[in-house]
Amino acid sequence: MNAVHHTEAEMTNPRAERVRDVARLATRSGRSKRAAFLAEGPQAVREALQRHDTALADGGGGIVQEVFATVEALERHPDLGLSRGQVRLRTVGAEVLAAMADTVSPQGIIAVCRMVPHSLEDVFGAGVQLVAVMCRVQDPGNAGTILRAAVAAGADAVVLTEGSVDIYNPKAVRSTVGSIFQVPIVTGVSFDSLAVAARAAGVQLLAADGYGTTDLDILQDESTMRRLGSASEVENSSNPRLEDPSAWLFGNEAQGLDDQELAIAGHRVAVPLYGVAESLNVGTAATVCLYASARAHRRSDPSS
Amino acid sequence: MNAVHHTEAEMTNPRAERVRDVARLATRSGRSKRAAFLAEGPQAVREALQRHDTALADGGGGIVQEVFATVEALERHPDLGLSRGQVRLRTVGAEVLAAMADTVSPQGIIAVCRMVPHSLEDVFGAGVQLVAVMCRVQDPGNAGTILRAAVAAGADAVVLTEGSVDIYNPKAVRSTVGSIFQVPIVTGVSFDSLAVAARAAGVQLLAADGYGTTDLDILQDESTMRRLGSASEVENSSNPRLEDPSAWLFGNEAQGLDDQELAIAGHRVAVPLYGVAESLNVGTAATVCLYASARAHRRSDPSS
Repeated sequence: MNAVHHTEAEMTNPRAERVRDVARLATRSGRSKRAAFLAEGPQAVREALQRHDTALADGGGGIVQEVFATVEALERHPDLGLSRGQVRLRTVGAEVLAAMADTVSPQGIIAVCRMVPHSLEDVFGAGVQLVAVMCRVQDPGNAGTILRAAVAAGADAVVLTEGSVDIYNPKAVRSTVGSIFQVPIVTGVSFDSLAVAARAAGVQLLAADGYGTTDLDILQDESTMRRLGSASEVENSSNPRLEDPSAWLFGNEAQGLDDQELAIAGHRVAVPLYGVAESLNVGTAATVCLYASARAHRRSDPSS
Repeated sequence: MNAVHHTEAEMTNPRAERVRDVARLATRSGRSKRAAFLAEGPQAVREALQRHDTALADGGGGIVQEVFATVEALERHPDLGLSRGQVRLRTVGAEVLAAMADTVSPQGIIAVCRMVPHSLEDVFGAGVQLVAVMCRVQDPGNAGTILRAAVAAGADAVVLTEGSVDIYNPKAVRSTVGSIFQVPIVTGVSFDSLAVAARAAGVQLLAADGYGTTDLDILQDESTMRRLGSASEVENSSNPRLEDPSAWLFGNEAQGLDDQELAIAGHRVAVPLYGVAESLNVGTAATVCLYASARAHRRSDPSS
């Protein structure tokens, strides 16, 4: 791989037009216009560069368009920004970095990253097993947590329907702790088009719903029974099978999923609350649901 | 119940000694000295007041010592601070509230809450089933997430060993979203005393450990098999039984559990990673572990 391009002088004017261009990525319209977003801090930049290298090695386009860092940060993190393919690195003064970044303390380094466009057709292709769908989730921290849980559970993709928070907003990116680079993401689709694409691919829709009548524990029991050869005990069950390809739907924090979404999904699955908590945080619920599916998928497939 | 005491004039001087007294609760030493902490914003204050009323009804001491709110916040949240027993409400100017609170935007209301002291002996009493233990967890957001997961999973208590973040720090309190009032908490204990108390109560220690040789999925399978009458297939297993009373140990974010903690625990349990993620966030891992135990406990007990 090529060494980093690192020939220009340090940028020191926080009011320069080029600084403002980067700072505009803190806004949704700025990100949308440029199809790019910010990764802030050494951990996120490191993950972005790793993904960048992998993408190039796979023959795809790169992810990281430009890295801006203070001299101090480069000295503190000598592993960053070195020996990477085709990434432009620009050293900047601390004031310039502060003007560019959304975070109060980006620890001296940020990267401008390209959004990689994916479509529902890409995602619901052959072999799809597990998809996490956010339906009008509003809080960037929750969106980040759900995305991170999806990556840990090995989901094939993450989908955000229209009306959801922008997953590329700096707070959401931070809360994914690098996972945002590790899974295909589809944004801005209508719920209807999602449902059509999932159905066409033979993927069932499971609505995570606190008021659901189907208990996730029962689905886990039935899945285990089928796997352990007690299938006859559950053959009359009309419940969805966790081991089948599934897209989990996680709703808005305040309203949950709406009536139409619940009706189209068909299966309303509740995560049991064992304690005095009145309801589960959507991030916690998503972790439990996605892990239950991942477990059913992998354990029913002895090859994995 | 008595109406709120609400007779004093509005506080308007942000430099008053009484304001500084409250602001000191943003520091660990200030909280420790007064055995009190801050709940900020209407949701946290509401939860604190509910817990306060329950505690009084149960014949215990109250939780909320004082509520400070702007007139606007009281008008916006008429359900707060009214008809509560023995809570002193003081109206304050916006500047005073800002000087008291740790949050940038406490939404006009904060409560000074009493820490309720619990000991290991309280916690590891008769009937204890599930305890979440944080061993030197450092990040307040992670600590809050683990506590919230513990409450949702119906844990009997949350323990933080010495060297952990202060769970009463404002950022941690915020990230528990009210759950901090819903579970007994023990802080500042040594790992050794925790281990002794758990053993004496017949509670096994399960170390959540990314490098563990025991797979959580296997434990869940074995637990289900015992419950479904396939016990003979697992009778020779030397693995811990998820349905037995358990204390889960969650380690420091960077170093995990140390060698001594792992050796004393005995059981090192790994949460499987299904995706490309290199490791699980400790909050996500805790959610999966605590839910797996809760599920095994409740489903093996038909009375619940």
